[in-house]
Amino acid sequence: MNKPTNPKGTRDFSPKEVKRREYLKNIIKESAELMGFEPIETPAFEKLETLSNKYGDEGDKLLFKILNNGDKLKKADIDAIIQDKLKKFSESISEKGLRYDLTIPLSRYVAQHQQDITFPFKRYQIQPVWRADRPQKGRYQEFYQCDADIIGAPSLFQEVELLQLYHTVFKRLGANEKVVLKINNRKIINGVCEVLAVENKIGFIRTLDKLDKIGIEGIKREFHSQGLDAEKICSVIILEGNNIERLEKIKKFLISSKEGQEGINELEFILNILGLTDKDLKIEVDMTLARGLDYYTGTIFEVVPTIEDVSGSLVAGGRYDNLASNFGLNASGFGISFGFERLYLLIESLNLFPKELSENLIAKVMFTNFDIPNEKYGVIYEQLAITRAKGIKSIFYPNVTKLNKQLQYANQKKIPYVIIIGEDEFKKDSFVLKNMREGNQSTHSLTKMSNILEDLKIASIFAN
Amino acid sequence: MNKPTNPKGTRDFSPKEVKRREYLKNIIKESAELMGFEPIETPAFEKLETLSNKYGDEGDKLLFKILNNGDKLKKADIDAIIQDKLKKFSESISEKGLRYDLTIPLSRYVAQHQQDITFPFKRYQIQPVWRADRPQKGRYQEFYQCDADIIGAPSLFQEVELLQLYHTVFKRLGANEKVVLKINNRKIINGVCEVLAVENKIGFIRTLDKLDKIGIEGIKREFHSQGLDAEKICSVIILEGNNIERLEKIKKFLISSKEGQEGINELEFILNILGLTDKDLKIEVDMTLARGLDYYTGTIFEVVPTIEDVSGSLVAGGRYDNLASNFGLNASGFGISFGFERLYLLIESLNLFPKELSENLIAKVMFTNFDIPNEKYGVIYEQLAITRAKGIKSIFYPNVTKLNKQLQYANQKKIPYVIIIGEDEFKKDSFVLKNMREGNQSTHSLTKMSNILEDLKIASIFAN
Repeated sequence: MNKPTNPKGTRDFSPKEVKRREYLKNIIKESAELMGFEPIETPAFEKLETLSNKYGDEGDKLLFKILNNGDKLKKADIDAIIQDKLKKFSESISEKGLRYDLTIPLSRYVAQHQQDITFPFKRYQIQPVWRADRPQKGRYQEFYQCDADIIGAPSLFQEVELLQLYHTVFKRLGANEKVVLKINNRKIINGVCEVLAVENKIGFIRTLDKLDKIGIEGIKREFHSQGLDAEKICSVIILEGNNIERLEKIKKFLISSKEGQEGINELEFILNILGLTDKDLKIEVDMTLARGLDYYTGTIFEVVPTIEDVSGSLVAGGRYDNLASNFGLNASGFGISFGFERLYLLIESLNLFPKELSENLIAKVMFTNFDIPNEKYGVIYEQLAITRAKGIKSIFYPNVTKLNKQLQYANQKKIPYVIIIGEDEFKKDSFVLKNMREGNQSTHSLTKMSNILEDLKIASIFAN
Repeated sequence: MNKPTNPKGTRDFSPKEVKRREYLKNIIKESAELMGFEPIETPAFEKLETLSNKYGDEGDKLLFKILNNGDKLKKADIDAIIQDKLKKFSESISEKGLRYDLTIPLSRYVAQHQQDITFPFKRYQIQPVWRADRPQKGRYQEFYQCDADIIGAPSLFQEVELLQLYHTVFKRLGANEKVVLKINNRKIINGVCEVLAVENKIGFIRTLDKLDKIGIEGIKREFHSQGLDAEKICSVIILEGNNIERLEKIKKFLISSKEGQEGINELEFILNILGLTDKDLKIEVDMTLARGLDYYTGTIFEVVPTIEDVSGSLVAGGRYDNLASNFGLNASGFGISFGFERLYLLIESLNLFPKELSENLIAKVMFTNFDIPNEKYGVIYEQLAITRAKGIKSIFYPNVTKLNKQLQYANQKKIPYVIIIGEDEFKKDSFVLKNMREGNQSTHSLTKMSNILEDLKIASIFAN
């Protein structure tokens, strides 16, 4: 039969990859918990009624739907399929869909469990999501998101808190210098629309959001086709100078817009506080930053790399006021989302994963395995138990076989120390310690094994 | 609109539950890594061709299939649905299914990546699986499995190693005394069949496997209806006495069966080694243990609770010789699987979760939030940064509001210490430390804050 493979758009993770991914997850987790965020988890699938019509037409198409089981399949709407009404047909045979993001599950969770939650609710969540995107380089159908949100708190301290969270994570990863925080406020965009008498605000934001993709000329063309004064718009929002200069310019322009002024005040407050607390945070006020999603109402931001190898946003988020309103709950909140897969690529390309994770040592010590009387195995297992109790990763070679083959395994697995102990050694109450890196070996008395192992614990070749 | 809910058979996990689940996962993970097991992860869904016909007819029915997206739906086999050929119909609109267990994904992984794997391959994997079982108390459609396997190693040291792994986990959880390991060997069962001239071995094993459900009389009836001497069978396999006495009896019975003798030798070897290494491991040789799955070829075992509140097996596994043969790879292996959800119930009912996880403290210190000049916020954030850098979980109350409301929040969240600092305090360069448990409070100089925080770090009320 053919060699089996994983489905397109999905990945198997090797031990080395799992460990690196865990390293990233743990840094986000620990940083979030230190700031009082609590973890929740939601199921891999939600009811379709929960997911549908939340992600726009494009999103709806990318939902993975789960086929009903058993006799429920008999309800298949045959007319619908004959008439090519694919949506109606799929709804007749499916009631559940795979998680598309962590935001809708969060709002469902909050609405469902509001009686048990003490607000403000600070939660983080690290789980995979699934989208039926066409698989291509760097884009997967299964990928992780790491979200942190504060729900039920309208003040700007949430913005400070969550920007500090991302900043802490990047500092701990050693990547803080390689990224810049771009920040804007939806109220400023609304103010610009107000002053310029732009009626279709959503269209305006959608166009702005394409700047990265189609460039300045591209968005000018789009604004123009919407009957807007494209040159004027761009002169207002594409600003030179430092943050203070930019703010001064936009402030003057928005003098007649109450909402615009409010946006500027909010932005200034955040910049002031972060200027006091996080002096090493690189911030860029950027009036072209729009963040496409409809639910944002205030601060919006994204964190982008300043190096060339990685592009796109690494973290993004914003203020929303009615996230759970779909589910009958109004609560203001602020949320950030780490683009986990892109973060992984950044840390990899900056070579910032700890060395011990790159080497992926499965053990520091391997005991050889020879054909010896059972009670001698008892001696080996006792020593194994001692090393493990010391927190030193150690293995007993799984089969009785030739020494060469065992050493070859240790070599391939990069295990730095091998303890050779067979019938000859037992006769002399001794064992041989082989240093695989340096190639040398020495013979010791069995009674000294515990001391030798203690020394290995201190020796620095990773994998405790 | 109606309050939204998660789908039947699935669960949301609250912060407290997530932390407890992480605690269990980490103990399994750390114990496995100390023994040289490496983690892998596989995608949530596999191709249907990988999953189908691997779990028997019942299992096939319980697979969650994923509906094809977009135009692929047009390939729906309308004739099949009209003729009620549900399987054929679903195969026309689905190519993928959710992971049903971790065993088939492991064999697919090993077959697919065999060039990159150094055998023997010791892997562990902790991921959710999905089954369309009818939801009922304690049975979910989404649940976690934790598997550890050694592939490509035929020797009995694997049995020792993996039984030590489970034993280590239970010792670390403090639940070692509350469980017993039941062990048998398929070769012994085969030997019994040989001596008793039972032709339908699979039927014999299936019946034996029902002992827990239908009792001795039940299996006697089934054996009888298969034309077998039920009394004789039961007298051979239902044995009184200690392990040594049981082994002596079965050994005599199997004197003429080579395979049976081999099974006994294997079992004795494992018992001998474990008797030397894991003296506190409670083991029961049990000739009625069958483990239903077809692929077992040697040692089989399960770990069951000896307390009444929890029933069923907590860990189970066995030796297989041809696991990946479906995928064109023959490799002998030994694997164990922790029943994660049941293990959780056991530890919960034994009250063995660490106290700090039961309390679920989100922070040790809360700083109050009052309307003060921006630069004063800088002072508070600076102190927050210091506490967090000390590894003390701490929060700044998210909104400016009345003291009472802030204290109420700290109370509900069980935060033990509150630092009250508003305009009055700033005027006097002071702050108030409130001990929420004891209700008392004291005023200190602002310059002393760092020392006070240091003391709080040492103070023992959980949540560093």
